[in-house]
Amino acid sequence: MHIQSQNRLLLGPGPSSVSPEVLKAMSTPLVGHLDPYFLEVMSDMQNMLRQTFQTKNELTLAMSGTGSAGMETVFVNLVEPGDKVLIGICGVFGERMKDVAQRCGADVLTVEAQWGTAIQPEQVEQVLKSTSSIKAVALVHAETSTGVRQPLQEISRIVHNYGALFIVDTVTSLGGIPVEVDKMQIDACYSGTQKCLSAPPGLSPVTLSSAALNVVKTRKQKVQSWYLDLNMIANYWGEERFYHHTAPISMIFSLHEALRLLLDEGLENSFARHARNGQLLQSELEAMGLTLFAQEGYRLPELTSVVFPEEYKEGELRRRLLHEYGIEVGGGLGPLKDKAWRIGLMGHSSTLSNVTLLVQAMKNLLH
Amino acid sequence: MHIQSQNRLLLGPGPSSVSPEVLKAMSTPLVGHLDPYFLEVMSDMQNMLRQTFQTKNELTLAMSGTGSAGMETVFVNLVEPGDKVLIGICGVFGERMKDVAQRCGADVLTVEAQWGTAIQPEQVEQVLKSTSSIKAVALVHAETSTGVRQPLQEISRIVHNYGALFIVDTVTSLGGIPVEVDKMQIDACYSGTQKCLSAPPGLSPVTLSSAALNVVKTRKQKVQSWYLDLNMIANYWGEERFYHHTAPISMIFSLHEALRLLLDEGLENSFARHARNGQLLQSELEAMGLTLFAQEGYRLPELTSVVFPEEYKEGELRRRLLHEYGIEVGGGLGPLKDKAWRIGLMGHSSTLSNVTLLVQAMKNLLH
Repeated sequence: MHIQSQNRLLLGPGPSSVSPEVLKAMSTPLVGHLDPYFLEVMSDMQNMLRQTFQTKNELTLAMSGTGSAGMETVFVNLVEPGDKVLIGICGVFGERMKDVAQRCGADVLTVEAQWGTAIQPEQVEQVLKSTSSIKAVALVHAETSTGVRQPLQEISRIVHNYGALFIVDTVTSLGGIPVEVDKMQIDACYSGTQKCLSAPPGLSPVTLSSAALNVVKTRKQKVQSWYLDLNMIANYWGEERFYHHTAPISMIFSLHEALRLLLDEGLENSFARHARNGQLLQSELEAMGLTLFAQEGYRLPELTSVVFPEEYKEGELRRRLLHEYGIEVGGGLGPLKDKAWRIGLMGHSSTLSNVTLLVQAMKNLLH
Repeated sequence: MHIQSQNRLLLGPGPSSVSPEVLKAMSTPLVGHLDPYFLEVMSDMQNMLRQTFQTKNELTLAMSGTGSAGMETVFVNLVEPGDKVLIGICGVFGERMKDVAQRCGADVLTVEAQWGTAIQPEQVEQVLKSTSSIKAVALVHAETSTGVRQPLQEISRIVHNYGALFIVDTVTSLGGIPVEVDKMQIDACYSGTQKCLSAPPGLSPVTLSSAALNVVKTRKQKVQSWYLDLNMIANYWGEERFYHHTAPISMIFSLHEALRLLLDEGLENSFARHARNGQLLQSELEAMGLTLFAQEGYRLPELTSVVFPEEYKEGELRRRLLHEYGIEVGGGLGPLKDKAWRIGLMGHSSTLSNVTLLVQAMKNLLH
C-alpha cells in the first residue's frame, strides 16, 4: 500500500489536525544533527518553548519521544529509589504517573478525586502535613481522560511550603490554556506536541526549574534511563553540543514551525480562541440534551467529555462520524468506556467552522 | 527564523539523505493513532520490517524513539537486576550498550577488541565457558564509530550452545548489508531509521524471537521503563490494539514509505549498491594516500573511517566541505577525534554520483 491522505478532521483527544505550514516545515530536506543550522534551529526553538511555557528556565528542551516519554523523563531524573512522591489521581494520566514513578522505585502516595472532578488543595496539604520528607508532588493540569482542568496556584503554594518539588503534566494544556511555569512555581513540566501545539506526535517539550535541575545534578545514582538522562541531554542542548543521540530532525522542524505559528498568533489570542470554541461546543452539546462529564467550573475548553444517554451506542455513532463525515473524536476511557465521547478542539483544530460542522453532524447522527 | 532547506548532501554517519518520496509521505495530513487506516499502515509496515530483518518474528515493530531508544528497549525488557550480560566492545556503541545494561541492573561482563577490529568468537567462548548462567550476549553488527562489520554466524552458534540470548545492534547495518535475523538466530535486534533505511531519525525498528519474547513475558519485575515496556506496546501493535501511547504518526508514514522503496529496489540490489559504492569510495581514498581505519576484511561499505596524515586539520577540512560544497561528513570519535572522518554512503545517499562528487571535492580541498 501507499501512504495517502484520508482527509480526516481530527477532533479527538489528540493528535489534532496539523496546519499545512507545519507539514511543509517537517518535510524540509534534512540536515545533520550537529549542523550549525540545526543547532541554530534548536536554540531558536528553545526560546520559543520558554515563551510558551512562560518560563526563564535554562533547561527547556524537547525530548525525543511522545508526551509519555516526557512524563518518564521527569520521574526517572527526579526520583531515586525510596523517594516519596505524592501523586494526584482523577483519571488515566494520574494513574499512569503512579505506574511510571513506581517503576523508578518511588514510594508513591496518592490523593484521589472522582473522575470528572479535580484534586482539592486540602487533600494535598493533609498528606504533606502527616508524612515527612515527600520529595515531589505531581498533578495533571489537563486530564485528557475526563476533560478536567486542575487548578494549580493554591496547591503549588502548599507544595512549596512543605519544601517539595511541584511536577505538572501539561500535555493537553500547553498552548490551549495558560501554562505559567514560573508564576505557578512549577519545578518540572512536560507536554506533548500533538495537542494544542498542533505538531505531529513524537516530541515532548520539558522544562525544569533550577531547583529541579539541581536535584538531577546531585543524584546519588545514575538515572535509570540512558535515553532520557537529562544530565547528558542537557549537554547536547546546551553550549557544549555534546552528541548524545541523533535528534529527530524532521520532528524538530515541525515543532519549530508550530511554535512559531502559535507565538505569531499570540498566546493570549490562542487561549481566547480555545476558550471561545470550547464554550460554544459545550453549550451546544448541552442544548442537544447531552451531559458534560467534567464538573462545572473545571472544564477544559480544548477537551470535552460528553456522556450519551443509555439508548445510544457511542461506538457505532463514532464509527459513523468517522466514515460518513471523516471526523475523528475519541471514545471514553475507564468508567466512561462505551458511554462517552472525548472531543478535542485543540490548536489548529479549534475553529468556529469545526464546531459548527461537528455539532450539525452530531445532530444528523443522533436523530 | 523560518525553517528552510539548506541543500545539504548527507554523507556522514547518519542521518542520511532522505528521498523526496519519503518526505512527501511524512507530510501526509495526519490520521489518529487508532484510525482503521493507521492500523492498516502499521500492519503493512510490520510485514515490511519482517522482510527487511529477514525474520518471521511476530514481535516486530517500530519503537517511538531513535536507535538508542531501541537499544534501551532491548535491555530494559530482557534484563532484570543481577542478570549477567556479556557485551562486545570495540567502539562507542558497544560502550553505550554497557552503560545502558548497567542502568538496568545487569552484571556486565565485557570482551573488547581494538578500535578498528572486530570481536573474535574465541573471546566470547572463553567467557561463556568460564562464567555460568550468562543470560545474553550483545554485539554491534556495524560499529558506526569505526566502520567495522562484526561477523555474527560463529558467535551466534557459540552463544546458543551456552543457552544465552543473542542481542545484535543493527542500527547502521539494516538495509545496507544483510541482516538475517532468523538465519543468524538473533534473539533481539534493534535498528534506526536514519541510516541505510533513509527515513528521518525518530523511530527504532525492533524484533524479538519467541525465546526473547518469552523472557519478557515471564519477568519477575515490571520493566523499569513504562515508555519502552514491550508487554504493553505489543498489545497496541498486536491484535488487541490497546492504546499505550500516541504513536508518532508522521514518522511511521515516513518509515513505511522508506521500507516500501527499499523492498521495491530489493534487498539484494540494495546490498549490492551499498557494496559497490562503498568499495569505490574506499579504493579512491586509498589511491589518495589516505588510510582506511577498519581492518581489511571487516569493512562496512556504508560507513568508512578514514584517517588523515598528521599535517591535515580534519575539523577545518570538514567545515570547508560543509560550507563550500554543502556536504556533511562526520568527525572521528574517541581515539579518532581530530584525526579521521566517518563517511556514510547509506540508503538514498549511496550513489555513484555522490562518491564521485565527494572524492573530487576531497581532492580539491586536500591539494
